[in-house]
This record gives sequence, C-alpha cells and structure tokens, in this order.
Amino acid sequence: MPIIDTDVHESFSSLQDLVPYLPDPYKSWIAQGAWRGIPQPFCYTSPGNGNRADVVTDDGSPVASDYDLMRKQVLDEYDLTYAVLTGYFYPTMLKLQYGLGTALAAAYNDYCAEHWLAKDDRFIGSIQIFARDPQAAAREIDRMADHPQMRQVMLPVVDDIAYGDPTYRPIFEAADRNEMMISFHHTTHAQGPYGMGLHYMERRALLPVALMPQVISLIVNGLFDNFPRLRFMVLEGGFSWLPHVMWRLDRDYRMGRVEVPWIKKLPSTHCRERLKLSTQPTEDISAENWVKLIELMGTDEILVFSTDYPHFDFDSPNAAIPRGLPDDLREKIFWKNAAAFYDIDIPPAAASIAAE
Amino acid sequence: MPIIDTDVHESFSSLQDLVPYLPDPYKSWIAQGAWRGIPQPFCYTSPGNGNRADVVTDDGSPVASDYDLMRKQVLDEYDLTYAVLTGYFYPTMLKLQYGLGTALAAAYNDYCAEHWLAKDDRFIGSIQIFARDPQAAAREIDRMADHPQMRQVMLPVVDDIAYGDPTYRPIFEAADRNEMMISFHHTTHAQGPYGMGLHYMERRALLPVALMPQVISLIVNGLFDNFPRLRFMVLEGGFSWLPHVMWRLDRDYRMGRVEVPWIKKLPSTHCRERLKLSTQPTEDISAENWVKLIELMGTDEILVFSTDYPHFDFDSPNAAIPRGLPDDLREKIFWKNAAAFYDIDIPPAAASIAAE
Repeated sequence: MPIIDTDVHESFSSLQDLVPYLPDPYKSWIAQGAWRGIPQPFCYTSPGNGNRADVVTDDGSPVASDYDLMRKQVLDEYDLTYAVLTGYFYPTMLKLQYGLGTALAAAYNDYCAEHWLAKDDRFIGSIQIFARDPQAAAREIDRMADHPQMRQVMLPVVDDIAYGDPTYRPIFEAADRNEMMISFHHTTHAQGPYGMGLHYMERRALLPVALMPQVISLIVNGLFDNFPRLRFMVLEGGFSWLPHVMWRLDRDYRMGRVEVPWIKKLPSTHCRERLKLSTQPTEDISAENWVKLIELMGTDEILVFSTDYPHFDFDSPNAAIPRGLPDDLREKIFWKNAAAFYDIDIPPAAASIAAE
Repeated sequence: MPIIDTDVHESFSSLQDLVPYLPDPYKSWIAQGAWRGIPQPFCYTSPGNGNRADVVTDDGSPVASDYDLMRKQVLDEYDLTYAVLTGYFYPTMLKLQYGLGTALAAAYNDYCAEHWLAKDDRFIGSIQIFARDPQAAAREIDRMADHPQMRQVMLPVVDDIAYGDPTYRPIFEAADRNEMMISFHHTTHAQGPYGMGLHYMERRALLPVALMPQVISLIVNGLFDNFPRLRFMVLEGGFSWLPHVMWRLDRDYRMGRVEVPWIKKLPSTHCRERLKLSTQPTEDISAENWVKLIELMGTDEILVFSTDYPHFDFDSPNAAIPRGLPDDLREKIFWKNAAAFYDIDIPPAAASIAAE
C-alpha cells in the first residue's frame, strides 16, 4: 500500500547552515555568533529529550539533520511514497526583531530546498514563514510557491497567535493565490490556557488543547468561507476531539449565527469537507472504537497518517493504525486522504501496487 | 422521574447585600461604594446579554436575584427534586487585595445560606472560596461545611489557575476532611490559550478548552490519587471531549508513567470512577450518537443533567436529553449520577415515583 507520511521533521546541523542564504546584516550577525537564538522555556525532562534513541548520532549533530539517516530509518524502512517535511525551526517563536524573523524563514526555505527537497523526489515541502509580519510572510509564500515540491504553508502554533485573527489574512491570501494548503504544527512554545503544564505528560495532553482553538478560530472568523479553495491540516494535535468541536460549533452556530453571518455552512460540514487531522500520536483506542469515532466524525476522509520521525513517540506504519480497521479505511488513512489534500498523484509504481 | 439540576445560578441584588456579613474595613468600604468591583474584560454582544428574556424583571434587579421567580421558573416549573446553586459571584476573579477576596467569599456564603438555602430544602449549596489564598480558602471550607445543605466546594475557572498546581492543595485537603465534593465552573475570566476568542461564538467554544486542562491538571498532578474520597464535577464545560482526554492520558501514562509515579490507576479509570460532567449546553448530537459517545466513555455514570438557569441557552428537562435514549440512561443522567456524586437520598416521595 502507498504511504504518505504527513509529519517528518528535518533539521539543519546548526544555524550556520543558514548563513549562505541570509542577507546582511543578519548574515554577519549569525556568522559571528551574535545571536542567542530563540528563547526555549521548554525544559521538561522527557524520554530521550523527545527523540528516538537511534536518531542520535555519534558526532553530536542535531537529530534529523542527516538526510541519509532519515532516508534509511523512515523513507526506505517503510517504503514511503511521500514524506512531508514539516521542520524543526519555527522563526515565529521570535517575538522581537521581526526583520530577523523574516530573513530566517526565507533562509530556511532556501536551505531546505537545496539540502532536502533536491535530494529526494519523495519529499513534499512546507513553506516556513515568520507569521508576526504577515505581509512579509505573504511575500515569502509568493517567492517559494513555484518550487515544484512545495505544497503547503506551515503555520507554527506558538503561545499567542490564533490564526483566525484578521491580522493574519495576508498569509491566507498568499496561500490561496499560490494554491498552497495550510498546515498547523505546534512549536515548543505552544501551551494551554494556564501555561505549558507542570509535567511533560500534562504538556503533551495540552497540545490538542492548543490546536483545537486554531480550528475554532478559523471557522468562526470566516477563513473556511473566505477562502473556499484552501484546505487545512492539523498535525500532531490529536483527532478524537473533533466530534466535540463539530457538535459544539454546530449548536452555537444554530443559536447564534446572527453574530457570524459570513459562515455559510454548518461548521461540521466545513470540517468534513476541508479539514484533515494527522494520526500521530495515536491515542489509546481499540479498533472497535476507531470505527465508532469515525462514525461520529461523519466521514472517513479526515484522518491522515504520520510518523512524527524522529521523535520518541514515533508511530510505525506497521503498528499505529489497527489492522482490525476495514481495508478501504486503512487506504484512506495511509495515503488517499493526504493525496487529496495535497492534490498529488501517487507515482505509477505505487498506484499499480495499490490497484492490485 | 426525579430531577437533580446541577447548575442553577443564584445572585444577590447588589453588593450591598453582602455588607451585613462583612467585617471592617471591608464592610465600610463596600457600604460607601469605595470599591469598583471585579474588572470585567468580557464585553461581547450576546443573546439577551447571556440571559433568558423572561428572567429580566421590571425593577432592573440583577437576574436570578429573586428566589420566588427562580422557584416559579425552574424548581416548580420542572418539579425539580434538587437544584444545586452554583453562584454568579466568584471572588477569585480578583487579582489583588486578597484579604478582600477572602472576606467577600465568606460574606457571600453567609448571604447564600440565609437568603437562598434557608428558603428551600431542594437547594444544594456550593461553598464559594477565594482560591488565591489557599489556606484562607481552607478555613472558609472548614467554617461552612457543617451547613447541612452544603455539598461541594466551587472552584472557579479563571484565566490563570490550573488547580492541580501544588499551591492549591490546602483547598483539596479541606474539602476532603469535610467530605465536600469538588465542582468546577467557568467565570467570565475563563479563556483559551490565545485569549477569550474574537466572537461570542468563539468564546463559547473555548469554554470546554478552558475546562479540559483542569481535569488533565488534577489527574497528572495526583489529585485523584492523593484524595481517594473526593469526586470531581465539571459544570457547563461540555462532555463529548472526554473520550479524547481519557485516551490521550492513557497513552501518555503507558509511555511516561516514570515521570508521574503517584498515579496509580489508568487516567480513564480515574475518570470513570470519580468524574462527572454536566450536560448543559448539550451539543448538536443525535440520540444515536449520544449512545455511541457513552459507549466510547466506557460508562453511563458520568453525565449529570443541568439547566444553567437563568441563561439564554437554558436546557429544559423536557427537551435537552433526547427521548430516544434508553430509560435507564435517562434516569442516570437526570438524577442517579448526581445523587451518587452528592451522596444524597432522593426524598421518599420522589423515590417512590422513580420506583414505579
């Protein structure tokens, strides 16, 4: 069966990798080590510092900075048809010196195109942006969208941005005019209403709590209606909460649509038609309950598979999705739903395998 | 059938009602109008300013400040067996002058005992606290717990407190030693990770997002384990998200329990044994999906009925819970689950009706 892995994290070896792609003065500042990087309040103890034990290399380079190792451990190991690169470095976490933020996003995109996308046709790319300067982010989307492997704009989830805010419209306009899709992924700055949580287990359970409001924000503030060609994906944010969000929004829409006349469809319809949610980390759900859950969602076209390589809670294609699920549902989760989202053809070889 | 309404909001006519119960200097300050009250950043337009049209009285007094009107509109109208008073005035919203906060909570409890609880045996009371001084809150729980109608401590959900934080342990210790249960209700300060939301519809959808982390916080930080006699209720915070939270916590517990060795049961088991969620506002769920949802929860003993009188999205006992649900499930939702939570006997008359 073809497999599209919608969440694979690639990284650079160090910030110095970006220097060739930066304009001055940022080039010289970064080259001289004149920048301390983005503050990281995230300091939990966590399994393997969050990573698989086997992705740490002897030379101490950052995890997922080596294409050959990634190729061996995930693309070839599981014979992936496509792997969507979602990044590690999210300049939007920077809350000052916005010119630097914009320059870092552009440099990262150029670095990624040359050192990752060019190496493997199986890679799908994400345009990284600095969201705190929405007009500059729109220009960056315009600049990168012609790259044939770029298929989506990555909206990084930080602690203070709900992307339905009108401030961020230029980003969606640029994605729309360039036929890029929209994906969300948390950063280490993501948090719940009361902070990051006091334990790593708590912080993990709060990540879906940080992602649900992004869906709510987009729907209530009209993004699904204003940009009918855009599709939206939430990565690594859980999925079994979706019936709740759909039902809650539907009831409140029926009661209070006078406040939000720009919403032209039931929120649940918007979700069923245009939203995808990635499966990793799968929850503690039996095959029987997977089926019930999908019945409650009202469609089997929302879930898309992901591994989250190289993290410790990596979901193997061989184990994460219960074998007890119907074959057609497994096909949709492993590749068909993601292929529809990205509007990509499965390569002939894989398609013929799928047809057998 | 008996009905226990777990969420009825009573109010005072004005802050002046509290003056007789306040010590100086707060008594004289409030009497002189020397206090501006608690800041209210909440300023959405909303249906009826959030209230039923028929609860607004000609004399302009605050809604739900008149026992006779409440009795007529909800207790007698629906022949309630019990109505749990959950308040309107939550001193914990005050972020300064903590002596004032503690004094207001105590004054409110005395006012409520005299002007509400004493008037109707059907009322169950909530001990209001000022949570920002946990030791003072514990003393207030000790002071009020002997009142025969008091059954729970109300933990108000504000923007900056997750109650699993060790800071708040004295509150749980006091509830435990006094055999009071714990209930959560949002205040107008409750919000999601990115604030209150840009529209009233969005703010409403974020209330469950503000409540889920309280359950997560209690479980991860050991409250369910440390206080095995306590039971916990989330009011007006939605309920269809529970399978997600249980499954997510279970997976992370299986992977990472070394971090949280004080948790002695699967989080889902804790939830099934000790957590209740009130039904109002019911979501846009068919009877068939109600049944599936309860199957996913793994027990039919979690949901408890509530009206949320006097708010505009009041759930009538006649309409809110689908008639298509099995009778024994309706009995559990309408009274049995709440009776178990509060450890109360249904009055003989009502019990004989139930037995027919």
